[in-house]
Amino acid sequence: MPQPLFLAVDWGTTNLRAWVVGDDGAVLAEERFPWGVGKLPPGEPERRLQESVRPVLSAEELPVLMCGMIGSTLGMVEVPYLDAPAGLDDLARALHRVDGHDPAVFIAPGLRCVRPNGDPDVMRGEETKILGWASLDPARQAGRRLLVLPGTHAKWALIEDGRIVRFITAMSGELFDLLSRHSVLKSDEGPDDPAAFAAGLRTGGEPGPLAAKLFTARSRVVGGDMPKSAVRDYVSGLLVGDETAHLPAMIGAEDDDGVIDLMGDPALCALYETAFAQRGVRTAVHDGDAAVLAGLTALHRQGAAA
Amino acid sequence: MPQPLFLAVDWGTTNLRAWVVGDDGAVLAEERFPWGVGKLPPGEPERRLQESVRPVLSAEELPVLMCGMIGSTLGMVEVPYLDAPAGLDDLARALHRVDGHDPAVFIAPGLRCVRPNGDPDVMRGEETKILGWASLDPARQAGRRLLVLPGTHAKWALIEDGRIVRFITAMSGELFDLLSRHSVLKSDEGPDDPAAFAAGLRTGGEPGPLAAKLFTARSRVVGGDMPKSAVRDYVSGLLVGDETAHLPAMIGAEDDDGVIDLMGDPALCALYETAFAQRGVRTAVHDGDAAVLAGLTALHRQGAAA
Repeated sequence: MPQPLFLAVDWGTTNLRAWVVGDDGAVLAEERFPWGVGKLPPGEPERRLQESVRPVLSAEELPVLMCGMIGSTLGMVEVPYLDAPAGLDDLARALHRVDGHDPAVFIAPGLRCVRPNGDPDVMRGEETKILGWASLDPARQAGRRLLVLPGTHAKWALIEDGRIVRFITAMSGELFDLLSRHSVLKSDEGPDDPAAFAAGLRTGGEPGPLAAKLFTARSRVVGGDMPKSAVRDYVSGLLVGDETAHLPAMIGAEDDDGVIDLMGDPALCALYETAFAQRGVRTAVHDGDAAVLAGLTALHRQGAAA
Repeated sequence: MPQPLFLAVDWGTTNLRAWVVGDDGAVLAEERFPWGVGKLPPGEPERRLQESVRPVLSAEELPVLMCGMIGSTLGMVEVPYLDAPAGLDDLARALHRVDGHDPAVFIAPGLRCVRPNGDPDVMRGEETKILGWASLDPARQAGRRLLVLPGTHAKWALIEDGRIVRFITAMSGELFDLLSRHSVLKSDEGPDDPAAFAAGLRTGGEPGPLAAKLFTARSRVVGGDMPKSAVRDYVSGLLVGDETAHLPAMIGAEDDDGVIDLMGDPALCALYETAFAQRGVRTAVHDGDAAVLAGLTALHRQGAAA
């Protein structure tokens, strides 16, 4: 019978996931809590960990290993970013042990990188997920892969020989939310409109400023070319089209002819699959939970328990 | 002593301007009202025109000529768009006379065009301003000019031999407002930060999706490269930089080596001047009130009074 080994926690801005991992690597218990660090006052994340998360999972006596925004100024303690390129071994060496806890509480650092054009980028939590994903298959430990995590702040990561070389964050999800809720293009959720999404993809994939491409959502409606009910999916297509057409060159992967890997919410990944398929690019979709668990488990083995 | 000739009205989404124009072309009286058609229920614009705007300006006995969103579904009557290319003569021939008014009430049509990539675009009100501007100087009636009207929905118009050939609308101003008020990049108005604006211009002018460039406003702050107080001007620079770097090619004017003309709010035009100067492009700034008055006066002479 497997014994509980440690409590793995992915603690982000909007919620947290926690798993009791056994000494055979299997998950013995898991919970989701709606307590993202973005919603909690200072000091509260530590209290919730001790008074709720650990007791609920009967993990009072287990060491804890966490990743995500819990390592930011909003979380328990600010853990300095590690510079990319970085692999799991670098992350494991840089785990931060939080003062005053026994059994130990560790937080994985986020990553910082310099984009090809010199601009900075950062991530917290996705590094563990991305490197965990790479650790799940020996084929991902050699050669070059481009992995995309769609979302509010989508992360594109270039992985070489199992290490994150660099990454770019795109606020496409947040822009979609802003435009759908507050702009002249605001719209209610309606039935899916794949034709409107495809039309948005085409215009979004064109050259030119996004601000100019977005206005076509309005000019198509007032000119009678598109019903108002299609605006939401059209704008979604514009944003995904702009991102998928122009980000590969920005990250320096425009000449890659391999598969692009996608990870995250299946419905969102499906939109990116459609976008890449329209450009003739093959994709594969992967599970994010398995990836972050693999990353936290590897970090526990290499760092926290070492 | 000049006699009043007609009441000229520029009636937009957020407010309206009205001028009594004399038979010598001079302005005899003018008023601004906060009654944009976007704020009024159906039927209300017509009532306000008759019961407030005309009496306040002692214009009960004058014909009226209006341009702007008053000719949209939100206004008094929906006037069909005219297709570009179009000049003042085309607009004058397409003036819509509103039923049931004596003296007459006319509304100028908006313009519709097809962008070089096939997408539609529309304007209502700016056509009168742009063609009025072109009519103010014989030098603008020959050859090619690129005129930019910065704003919530910035209009870029390509003018050839005094006619609007095509135009592109960019929602840069609206995006700035959304990001400043509702996004993870939200920020209060602070002291001007020209260095942050210039840094934003550089990143905004790079290739790549805007959504990815926007995230650098956050990564610069959390990485310690920029104070939080600089975010507002940096984001402003990003948006103006993206627009000014990439819209000329989109409208088919990337090889023009002449002056780019700017018209509108002086503070906003100054930001665009800075952006174009950074790219080595010369600019000239023009007054919008004189332009729309010239346009309405020419339309009255050529159309309403003809």
